[in-house]
Amino acid sequence: MSHTLEELAAYVGGEVIGDKACEIDSVASLISARSGQICFYTGSKHKQSLRQTSASAVIVSAADTERSPVDCIVVDNPHLAFARIASLLHKPSNVNQGIHKTVCIDDSAVIDPSVSIAAHCVIGAGTKIAAGTTIAAGCVLGDGCVIGENSCLYANVTIYNDVQVGRNAIIHSGVVAGSDGFGMANDSGSWVKVPQLGTVIIGDDVEIGANTTIDRGALDDTVIGNGVKLDNQIQIAHNVHIGDHTAIAGCVGIAGSTRIGRYCTIAGGVVVLGQLEITDNVHITATSTVTSSIQRSGAYSSGTPLMENARWHRSYVRFGQLDDMAKRLKQVEKQLADKDSK
Amino acid sequence: MSHTLEELAAYVGGEVIGDKACEIDSVASLISARSGQICFYTGSKHKQSLRQTSASAVIVSAADTERSPVDCIVVDNPHLAFARIASLLHKPSNVNQGIHKTVCIDDSAVIDPSVSIAAHCVIGAGTKIAAGTTIAAGCVLGDGCVIGENSCLYANVTIYNDVQVGRNAIIHSGVVAGSDGFGMANDSGSWVKVPQLGTVIIGDDVEIGANTTIDRGALDDTVIGNGVKLDNQIQIAHNVHIGDHTAIAGCVGIAGSTRIGRYCTIAGGVVVLGQLEITDNVHITATSTVTSSIQRSGAYSSGTPLMENARWHRSYVRFGQLDDMAKRLKQVEKQLADKDSK
Amino acid sequence: MSHTLEELAAYVGGEVIGDKACEIDSVASLISARSGQICFYTGSKHKQSLRQTSASAVIVSAADTERSPVDCIVVDNPHLAFARIASLLHKPSNVNQGIHKTVCIDDSAVIDPSVSIAAHCVIGAGTKIAAGTTIAAGCVLGDGCVIGENSCLYANVTIYNDVQVGRNAIIHSGVVAGSDGFGMANDSGSWVKVPQLGTVIIGDDVEIGANTTIDRGALDDTVIGNGVKLDNQIQIAHNVHIGDHTAIAGCVGIAGSTRIGRYCTIAGGVVVLGQLEITDNVHITATSTVTSSIQRSGAYSSGTPLMENARWHRSYVRFGQLDDMAKRLKQVEKQLADKDSK
Repeated sequence: MSHTLEELAAYVGGEVIGDKACEIDSVASLISARSGQICFYTGSKHKQSLRQTSASAVIVSAADTERSPVDCIVVDNPHLAFARIASLLHKPSNVNQGIHKTVCIDDSAVIDPSVSIAAHCVIGAGTKIAAGTTIAAGCVLGDGCVIGENSCLYANVTIYNDVQVGRNAIIHSGVVAGSDGFGMANDSGSWVKVPQLGTVIIGDDVEIGANTTIDRGALDDTVIGNGVKLDNQIQIAHNVHIGDHTAIAGCVGIAGSTRIGRYCTIAGGVVVLGQLEITDNVHITATSTVTSSIQRSGAYSSGTPLMENARWHRSYVRFGQLDDMAKRLKQVEKQLADKDSK
Repeated sequence: MSHTLEELAAYVGGEVIGDKACEIDSVASLISARSGQICFYTGSKHKQSLRQTSASAVIVSAADTERSPVDCIVVDNPHLAFARIASLLHKPSNVNQGIHKTVCIDDSAVIDPSVSIAAHCVIGAGTKIAAGTTIAAGCVLGDGCVIGENSCLYANVTIYNDVQVGRNAIIHSGVVAGSDGFGMANDSGSWVKVPQLGTVIIGDDVEIGANTTIDRGALDDTVIGNGVKLDNQIQIAHNVHIGDHTAIAGCVGIAGSTRIGRYCTIAGGVVVLGQLEITDNVHITATSTVTSSIQRSGAYSSGTPLMENARWHRSYVRFGQLDDMAKRLKQVEKQLADKDSK
Repeated sequence: MSHTLEELAAYVGGEVIGDKACEIDSVASLISARSGQICFYTGSKHKQSLRQTSASAVIVSAADTERSPVDCIVVDNPHLAFARIASLLHKPSNVNQGIHKTVCIDDSAVIDPSVSIAAHCVIGAGTKIAAGTTIAAGCVLGDGCVIGENSCLYANVTIYNDVQVGRNAIIHSGVVAGSDGFGMANDSGSWVKVPQLGTVIIGDDVEIGANTTIDRGALDDTVIGNGVKLDNQIQIAHNVHIGDHTAIAGCVGIAGSTRIGRYCTIAGGVVVLGQLEITDNVHITATSTVTSSIQRSGAYSSGTPLMENARWHRSYVRFGQLDDMAKRLKQVEKQLADKDSK
């Protein structure tokens, strides 16, 4: 379904510069766009692509309207307006497909009539699935789970017993939620399992990327706040709390009982050790290791720069000599001071 | 089923201080406990929670009995005693659910009558599953596998052909065991696959966390020893050997043909390069990279500290100048020595 | 089926030293081989194993023929010749198993009659699967997918809508291809999903390891070139391009829109940040973080050495003082220069 530029601008609170009646049917990138499509432009890195675009219109900020060779929608945040317009133009067709005949549902499960469940899913005893939710093929939901309204589980998701998922969740394939935490007591060298008796509570508007794992709590629960966005292959250990609207990129690991604040961003490959408290609005750059609690908002980092191998190896070796170097430097300073005071 | 404090103390070889007849039905954390529940206390970090607990009893060490506001079981290792009591009070109901009608089992598979297999599982030719084992929905076991007694495979586990799993295994959802190792020969730039002809041998009492992957050996086997505990999202490459009772935390990668000793602990996010030998009782701290063999027991680390971004960036840049700094320091020392010797 | 040494040598363009009629039925490692088996030898590390082998023959380079206690095939690249001979001797029996009765296939899917599809798979609308391809149990393929000839999907693979896979693909269990990229726009702190409208295009002769995830493009596509080899638990973000014949080891993460060249190797645990360009023939060592584009072929590294914990901790602390040390060193040099100039 197409919309006019005027309709789209009104939808995102923007202003049209150009032909208000121009019909837009879909979104595209500046480079691949054709007539009838809209793009967005946010930075000088894409200046060349903007100049050459075959799109019918571009979403830009006021500062960039001059640059656009085509009609514009002017907004404060072009990326955000683009997200909204793309969602409008590419709304998934939410047909109720019903429950496939191969699905195994326990008699005590409570499934809203508007729920779609695809082939070979398994739904456990007492599990409740709310209106408008779609569950793709091969998902396994344990007993006593709750899945909120308008959620979407992609194929081959596994939800253990008693896990709760809020409204508007998007859970990608291969996600495991509610697996046992890594809790063990040591008995003269060998390990004795500590039963993991809590569960996982996932808030509203959460997206969880492919193959991400979220362990159930040991005694109390693991908690994922409202609006949290988790990328692929993230590991969330038992009893972790993730604050509302925090976004975590791929390959991150959060160890047990750590609490992450609200509005944080954690970049790819970060590891956060256990039992820590990270306050709100903390931003951790890629592949950092967080070894202690963070009480002050801001950006934090660890790690060393990438270098050509031979040059790197020299720094790598010197790293092991750093304490010695520091002591020798102090000694040199002392010798110089002694000389001066003579 | 509830037990008296006296029964529980006897079960873990501890001593009751207080009302031996006190009835306990479950475990909880100090903070969330109610009457009828038992907790454990191990450290001053939780002093406040202990003081305020509504639990009926607490498991403590002798040194901490004074602190407890409620009845106690006194033991040497409260965490271990708690693990045992929690397992006793929260024993999963092991009802034989039989084999679901949607399961596809090859005629030549040998399944003990006490085995439960849930919906949509697939069991290959010649695969043997021993008494008391439970296989949750959606698991796929290849041909020629062996699964020992009293093991538990959670939903959507994949076991390739010929993989052997010992007794009392707990294998969480999304685990893949027996996939091909990353073996390739280079032919003028392009890669030729080396067939992966070994398998995976997993000992007794092993737990494997969600989405962990264990590759089959190239020629000989990949071996996971008895009592090994693997957390989530670990990657074990072909021909790795993990010694008995070693515990590995989440997001660790072990490259091909490396041998890890017994009683080791490897913290989260560690990478161990290939072809190495790590002796027994080695402990690697989080996110370290192990680049050479370790012949001596002890704790090992690599990595740099987390800092506020601006301060970190200065150290980050200086890291690249380290070799230059070291040479200049030496030069300065030489100049001073020359002066002194004049 | 066994072959004579002469036949095997001809197959790999090598030369027999010894009994050309010697019958070989399988491959093995030097240590575990028995009579009738062939091994390969590449380096002095395995000298002892070579001396003691019970194999009937060994594949060696010309320089090592003297060392071999048994018959040899002499070639330039023993590992490559071994890969070829192992593939010949251990060819998987490619019986057409047909389509299992529990498979759910949309009427509009186009499946070549020679395709095997195992139990509980689901194949979406319009999806095309070419001749000779095998799909193991529990795989879910969305709508509009294309899978090329002679490909192999192991159990429990998930392919989202519209993903294209070339010929001779090997895709291991737990792989997810086509999941949404991590695209979000920020709206006063909370995150608004950007629809992910591209797909994933995978070339010919690609192998993808267990539990690896490849996100679909945001607007344009994520592209995996011909002959690319991906190990287990790799995360490929949206709009990444991987050049032909590049090999990537386990636990690597590649962030959004990064382009990796051809003939690169990326070792285990590396993270490559987003929006970067890595040229051809670049080799990144294990656990490096790539933070900027690389225009020159060669080997690159980051990271610090593993040390005993106590010694490491001293360097770790000094790292935070590096900038201060550098300034003090400069000051010392200045003082010395001043003295000299007096």
